[in-house]
Amino acid sequence: MKAKVIFYHAGCPVCVTAEQQLAGALDPAKFDVEAVNFADAPERIAEAERAGVASAPAFVIDGAPFHINFGASLADVKGGA
Amino acid sequence: MKAKVIFYHAGCPVCVTAEQQLAGALDPAKFDVEAVNFADAPERIAEAERAGVASAPAFVIDGAPFHINFGASLADVKGGA
Repeated sequence: MKAKVIFYHAGCPVCVTAEQQLAGALDPAKFDVEAVNFADAPERIAEAERAGVASAPAFVIDGAPFHINFGASLADVKGGA
Repeated sequence: MKAKVIFYHAGCPVCVTAEQQLAGALDPAKFDVEAVNFADAPERIAEAERAGVASAPAFVIDGAPFHINFGASLADVKGGA
């Protein structure tokens, strides 16, 4: 069974680069990658926060958050910045 | 031909987690991943800096730096902290 990886992003340039270079680089034999854009799915911000995500873009792999560079804080995302 | 990915780290707990969860997750059909521990190879700090790496752990993929969470700044690494 493949492991579930969630890539949370906010549509920002840093996010797009991370998605193309890193999310697209994960082994498709081992991982199912779901990309969540907070702009399209603001209801999932709380879920990301519970996993420890503080900024976007970030992966959650096996329950652990991995922030990639820095695009926007979740506070900014919630504020619509 | 596989793309070259370098994973720079400093042996810190944040680094080890990132290596296990992310460096180990990259598609082996597409990438050759080299792990560089600054503690073992301090001569490669300058190379990482030239690629834009400011902290460890970080990937350099196709010349672009991707910092993963925050383990240590390169200044700390150079200072032996």
